Amino acid sequence: MKVVYNDLGFAKPEPHRMRRQGFPEAIFCPGKSDEQILSIFRNLLTGRGPVIATRAPEKLAQELVSAITGAVWHRTARLVVSKPILRRNGRPVAVVTGGTADIPVAEEAAVSLEALGRAPTRLYDVGVAGLHRLLRHENALSRMAAVIVCAGMDGALPSVVGGVVKCPVIAVPTSVGYGVHLGGVASLLTMLNSCAANVSVVNIDNGFGAAVIASLISR
Amino acid sequence: MKVVYNDLGFAKPEPHRMRRQGFPEAIFCPGKSDEQILSIFRNLLTGRGPVIATRAPEKLAQELVSAITGAVWHRTARLVVSKPILRRNGRPVAVVTGGTADIPVAEEAAVSLEALGRAPTRLYDVGVAGLHRLLRHENALSRMAAVIVCAGMDGALPSVVGGVVKCPVIAVPTSVGYGVHLGGVASLLTMLNSCAANVSVVNIDNGFGAAVIASLISR
Amino acid sequence: MKVVYNDLGFAKPEPHRMRRQGFPEAIFCPGKSDEQILSIFRNLLTGRGPVIATRAPEKLAQELVSAITGAVWHRTARLVVSKPILRRNGRPVAVVTGGTADIPVAEEAAVSLEALGRAPTRLYDVGVAGLHRLLRHENALSRMAAVIVCAGMDGALPSVVGGVVKCPVIAVPTSVGYGVHLGGVASLLTMLNSCAANVSVVNIDNGFGAAVIASLISR
Amino acid sequence: MKVVYNDLGFAKPEPHRMRRQGFPEAIFCPGKSDEQILSIFRNLLTGRGPVIATRAPEKLAQELVSAITGAVWHRTARLVVSKPILRRNGRPVAVVTGGTADIPVAEEAAVSLEALGRAPTRLYDVGVAGLHRLLRHENALSRMAAVIVCAGMDGALPSVVGGVVKCPVIAVPTSVGYGVHLGGVASLLTMLNSCAANVSVVNIDNGFGAAVIASLISR
Amino acid sequence: MKVVYNDLGFAKPEPHRMRRQGFPEAIFCPGKSDEQILSIFRNLLTGRGPVIATRAPEKLAQELVSAITGAVWHRTARLVVSKPILRRNGRPVAVVTGGTADIPVAEEAAVSLEALGRAPTRLYDVGVAGLHRLLRHENALSRMAAVIVCAGMDGALPSVVGGVVKCPVIAVPTSVGYGVHLGGVASLLTMLNSCAANVSVVNIDNGFGAAVIASLISR
Amino acid sequence: MKVVYNDLGFAKPEPHRMRRQGFPEAIFCPGKSDEQILSIFRNLLTGRGPVIATRAPEKLAQELVSAITGAVWHRTARLVVSKPILRRNGRPVAVVTGGTADIPVAEEAAVSLEALGRAPTRLYDVGVAGLHRLLRHENALSRMAAVIVCAGMDGALPSVVGGVVKCPVIAVPTSVGYGVHLGGVASLLTMLNSCAANVSVVNIDNGFGAAVIASLISR
Amino acid sequence: MKVVYNDLGFAKPEPHRMRRQGFPEAIFCPGKSDEQILSIFRNLLTGRGPVIATRAPEKLAQELVSAITGAVWHRTARLVVSKPILRRNGRPVAVVTGGTADIPVAEEAAVSLEALGRAPTRLYDVGVAGLHRLLRHENALSRMAAVIVCAGMDGALPSVVGGVVKCPVIAVPTSVGYGVHLGGVASLLTMLNSCAANVSVVNIDNGFGAAVIASLISR
Amino acid sequence: MKVVYNDLGFAKPEPHRMRRQGFPEAIFCPGKSDEQILSIFRNLLTGRGPVIATRAPEKLAQELVSAITGAVWHRTARLVVSKPILRRNGRPVAVVTGGTADIPVAEEAAVSLEALGRAPTRLYDVGVAGLHRLLRHENALSRMAAVIVCAGMDGALPSVVGGVVKCPVIAVPTSVGYGVHLGGVASLLTMLNSCAANVSVVNIDNGFGAAVIASLISR
Repeated sequence: MKVVYNDLGFAKPEPHRMRRQGFPEAIFCPGKSDEQILSIFRNLLTGRGPVIATRAPEKLAQELVSAITGAVWHRTARLVVSKPILRRNGRPVAVVTGGTADIPVAEEAAVSLEALGRAPTRLYDVGVAGLHRLLRHENALSRMAAVIVCAGMDGALPSVVGGVVKCPVIAVPTSVGYGVHLGGVASLLTMLNSCAANVSVVNIDNGFGAAVIASLISR
Repeated sequence: MKVVYNDLGFAKPEPHRMRRQGFPEAIFCPGKSDEQILSIFRNLLTGRGPVIATRAPEKLAQELVSAITGAVWHRTARLVVSKPILRRNGRPVAVVTGGTADIPVAEEAAVSLEALGRAPTRLYDVGVAGLHRLLRHENALSRMAAVIVCAGMDGALPSVVGGVVKCPVIAVPTSVGYGVHLGGVASLLTMLNSCAANVSVVNIDNGFGAAVIASLISR
Repeated sequence: MKVVYNDLGFAKPEPHRMRRQGFPEAIFCPGKSDEQILSIFRNLLTGRGPVIATRAPEKLAQELVSAITGAVWHRTARLVVSKPILRRNGRPVAVVTGGTADIPVAEEAAVSLEALGRAPTRLYDVGVAGLHRLLRHENALSRMAAVIVCAGMDGALPSVVGGVVKCPVIAVPTSVGYGVHLGGVASLLTMLNSCAANVSVVNIDNGFGAAVIASLISR
Repeated sequence: MKVVYNDLGFAKPEPHRMRRQGFPEAIFCPGKSDEQILSIFRNLLTGRGPVIATRAPEKLAQELVSAITGAVWHRTARLVVSKPILRRNGRPVAVVTGGTADIPVAEEAAVSLEALGRAPTRLYDVGVAGLHRLLRHENALSRMAAVIVCAGMDGALPSVVGGVVKCPVIAVPTSVGYGVHLGGVASLLTMLNSCAANVSVVNIDNGFGAAVIASLISR
Repeated sequence: MKVVYNDLGFAKPEPHRMRRQGFPEAIFCPGKSDEQILSIFRNLLTGRGPVIATRAPEKLAQELVSAITGAVWHRTARLVVSKPILRRNGRPVAVVTGGTADIPVAEEAAVSLEALGRAPTRLYDVGVAGLHRLLRHENALSRMAAVIVCAGMDGALPSVVGGVVKCPVIAVPTSVGYGVHLGGVASLLTMLNSCAANVSVVNIDNGFGAAVIASLISR
Repeated sequence: MKVVYNDLGFAKPEPHRMRRQGFPEAIFCPGKSDEQILSIFRNLLTGRGPVIATRAPEKLAQELVSAITGAVWHRTARLVVSKPILRRNGRPVAVVTGGTADIPVAEEAAVSLEALGRAPTRLYDVGVAGLHRLLRHENALSRMAAVIVCAGMDGALPSVVGGVVKCPVIAVPTSVGYGVHLGGVASLLTMLNSCAANVSVVNIDNGFGAAVIASLISR
Repeated sequence: MKVVYNDLGFAKPEPHRMRRQGFPEAIFCPGKSDEQILSIFRNLLTGRGPVIATRAPEKLAQELVSAITGAVWHRTARLVVSKPILRRNGRPVAVVTGGTADIPVAEEAAVSLEALGRAPTRLYDVGVAGLHRLLRHENALSRMAAVIVCAGMDGALPSVVGGVVKCPVIAVPTSVGYGVHLGGVASLLTMLNSCAANVSVVNIDNGFGAAVIASLISR
Repeated sequence: MKVVYNDLGFAKPEPHRMRRQGFPEAIFCPGKSDEQILSIFRNLLTGRGPVIATRAPEKLAQELVSAITGAVWHRTARLVVSKPILRRNGRPVAVVTGGTADIPVAEEAAVSLEALGRAPTRLYDVGVAGLHRLLRHENALSRMAAVIVCAGMDGALPSVVGGVVKCPVIAVPTSVGYGVHLGGVASLLTMLNSCAANVSVVNIDNGFGAAVIASLISR
């Protein structure tokens, strides 16, 4: 296993993971100090692929943007991205949400996909309580190489999408809900128990992970 | 509060609950001895309404049927019923399932509804992974006074039904599933988090309770 | 399925759901931006029925009220309502609470019922630890078409109400409690396990959903 | 701490715990071999108080009865008792159940109380869905020194009893229920969240523990 | 059931519960508005017993104290008490804690006991990891009519106390802990599974309930 | 949505789902009667794709094999398969297990893949406690289009595989474990929290679903 | 990483792990076929250290003993051991239980320790509800290099032992309990929340793991 | 049991626990008032060993440092330490983390080890998704007497480390993660289910406990 990484003491970033694995190492911001994040971000810039910081709070995002030329803050997506892949390529992918409040998670996925060189189709607020909104887009969905479905509340949308497409569905439970939604656990369980056999699931609100998987499939 | 009940020592049945509340006291069999069940069943027969024993295992069911003239065992529904209301009345109700394995719970509901004098429409195996099966019946569903939806696995069907009908949906999570279905808890959570505002929920596999509620609505 | 909805990009509201389903699409505020909520609210006003925003925080509520003529903020209920149905109709319904702290959830239900054209009877702080307070109202309760019961702590009240009425009981667990109340999960479990067969349950603190169901029953 | 106990290697029974603490060491049968139980039982017989084996399966119970003169098997209570205290004494206590299926747990409590020299009043199947059955006995209950309440399903009965008595209520959740009853956890949570301040709780199905506490109070 | 209560609309307080049941109705403050609390407090003052508001936040406590002559704020116990029973009576009771951080819960119990006319012995920070601290007080403990044990972390102390006393132990799990303590659930489970048969349990941090029970036993 | 399905009353199978979605409708056996399964199996044979019954118990499997010409029972995989796709095609996929006891789940995936026309590489018992066993196969793994990883116990293997491959990892938690493994929930949680961004998860023991997804990716 | 292992296809045993890591690879029997276990056992015998099969059911154990010369079945411990280290060495270790029913887990630990060349002191049935039984052995315990404590029910014993010894305590929660013991989870939580800083925990009933750790410490 | 402790009323510190047990009593700050902490700290200074306050918030830490000569605040570790053991001794130990955000927990362990007289090797950010970072240090790790592994997210690192070392691994799950990480519970479960037999576990984020155990082993 010949892998090149750097040793910053508090972190050991791998700038060339994009080349080694087809997707870059992202910086998950919570729990790291601003200095640590900036330092890792700079180190990752020595590689070729995109550099992505996820769940970036506003203050940090602005620091990164002012410290690093070309870094862009995507506010809704809570991402700071540098050196995105500009040439859009790969087979088509879609990002779908059940409701309006799921959009931040969906944008984390969609903007990450764009940074990875994909051109995702966005289809928002088409949840199962008003199915007609989804069905109008059935043809478009059936052409996708992968579909990311972000849903909170009952988390039922991935099953419905899974029943109409010809590709893998990556289900992202969101923390949107209340009461016995348990911070997203209810949506997660729904998705893991999906009647549709082509549905797999990532962690609650994990838009970035869904984007990596969809990007690898679409390649 | 003027209520007449009998005192058997180990039980205090109320034969006239049908008159007092519009639905009879049912005998939930598990945890009671065969002698206790037979004794309570006989006592309830002194009232006018239907007498219903739920979750009756085969051996007990056969004992009841042979001991009590007119008692009928509904095998799939796991019910023993005596003195059902023969005249079908009330507004229309439907019983719907997501899959084939949900049918025993649905039959518990449907046969109970029949005992209570309703004539339920059955619509089985129309789960969300193949939505076309449900949508073909949309018109029929929109005429119902109440719809009972029994679903295991992802438990997503009540949300979809809830989005197309004009009446309350009584969702019955079933224990049909595996792994992180947790014996029906996953379906239950999905239903409690339904995006459709007209959905309420009863306990896992509680077909009888759903029937009581639908019957009261349909009256 | 012929359904008319609008496409705002971030949301696809359906102003005529009241006509299609007998209850309107409500706006659940948490997780949406103020601009999104205002925009959806305006769009829904193009329909005929009431427009209701739930769980509206104070600042947003005041914005809505100042931006939209005729919109009213119900502070305790945390609702903003526009174009309520003024003619009260339907069979009688009641809203009951176990304690004083359950009143905000009960008011969400009661004010929603009023917006939907019902005239609910309120009966507050009649929990099971002092049963005499409830029993005094037994006659009134026995005339209802539906009873909504909001209870936190042990969540035992719906079972008691379920034992004295002739109609469905819609149980609303509230998040009122502490320790092993688990944010309302304890009350929810109590209600789902109710000994009374006419009790169904909605999500924790879901007063609006309970109102929709009671309204449909009372129609 | 001067305590006398015996050392059997696999167990260290204390025959005189009745004298030291006012209640005897009981033998909880599950997980112990028949030989171990018989040996411990014999050893405890060297003390003066009652000897009680709980949760005794039929085969073991019959072995104990045939091996030990004077040992009595209480089938419903699943207890084997030797040398019970014959002189009934202490202030009055009651054992109450919500339903018929709770009786085995209640009998574990009642027979244990008898072995400890109390004369419990039994009041069975008076659950909250038919409150009139309980209220008829309100006067009797208000004279008790302690009341044990065994309830499965919604577990609501202790709160109601707690609201009418002048003494501590010892709540025993039972495993009687199904679905989201979770083997008794739902009843347990209800009881721990009781609105009545005089309710404390023991483990699911723990009739013996409740008897010990009631006996100590009644002394 | 002849019970006198008042109807404030938002609440139905019962000023004479002390006479009817031997303990007063307490005001659990969270979830009620300051006006509601003040109003209920005043209403309860029309009875004879002590009036107790629990979990009173500082601002509210100061309001109550300035509005109501004779009301006293017990800061650590988070109680406001008026008209305590001055004559100390009853058999001896003790309040014990595992650690220093459990003291607020213990004080809620101890001050409530004082309001109810008892004179509790306090024994703080004697947890099981240093058992010698407890054992030094073994003799004193063995004379008690009831012992309240408040413990967080492993919640093991009630079992140890239960093994040395001759009376009921009322175990109060506290929310003191971290990680997989789950806000007190871990301590609660420990106590419910106690090897000592004389231990019963109340909700997490429920010092007041424990005091009521101990007071009733000590009477 | 033009979808052809049959209506057997108790089931509505769709024989042409393979053509519509690229994977066939499988029959999940538990909860269905033998007659139902046989009937659905026969109905699905009218389509062109493979017919697969999952979790088939021995007796049923033998019935199917004797009733249906060409049906094959895969004992370890618990599958009955008819009309598999004989021409192996698609990009390479691998099925990996952490231990020996995970093999039945892995075989469900591998045999399903073969039925779907893939030629999976099997790599069994290479769990993380002896990492050298996995690393020896690093080169082979890096050429895969998708890797299915089945693991019980700590469920850590997908993270490690996810760190060395260039493709999506479909993680299948298995129910292999004991104690606080909670029937597979522990493995499931590990996988959902994977540090590797290319890991998605299916339900516990869901080998078939993993195969469908890997097959769609490999196409 | 130079590690020698064998490849049996369904398993990749490492006979020399004892030399590489100081403890052998054990065969956890559940989920493996008898043939697989026998084959792995034989393969591991080519190494030098002890070979240990854990959780061996009776039938398998007898097969192993008759197939493999020198293999010994330890019935209570549910172990089959071959080639144990005969020379007892290392610093002293103890195995302690709270009750009699914990002995099978304790014996799994003790016999494993013996196979690994240690001579453990056994101290059984010294749970916290009768503390005097433990304290009598305080001096012996204070000389240990490591103490394994197996406890079910409240799981409180490790905290007490942790407060009197000078060495690490390895806590083994057992599945001995009922009701809200949740199969050992309650004991596990107690131990993880121990007030004593020298306590660490292994999985429920994991006597073998505890033995490995104690053996490594004692070396 | 001859143990010397002091009685401050609200606390009973034991300054000589280091001598009695080989590790000092630490002050866990949350839930104690600043005055209480300062008072206990001063009392413990009368002993000989190190005095350690854990989870010290900034304001308190600065108070302690200014009030007590020689006390040092370790900001990242959230510790205040006085009178550390200056002479480094014992066999080598290591502290390892999976990621950067686990460092505060690791530093709690490492600085505690230093206070206890050990000289830990730090190895940070070597999680399983990039295994090469760990394997480079395999030789160093194989010489340790004990290894502490702190990991959040999937918590997989202790299993991998457990497979390459010759000593006990003390696994510390951290609260670093999101979604279904459940505040560290997911990491905890992974570790308790470790395939490596030499892994034991402490509570989430419990760096101090891990240090005590490693220190005792290294002695």
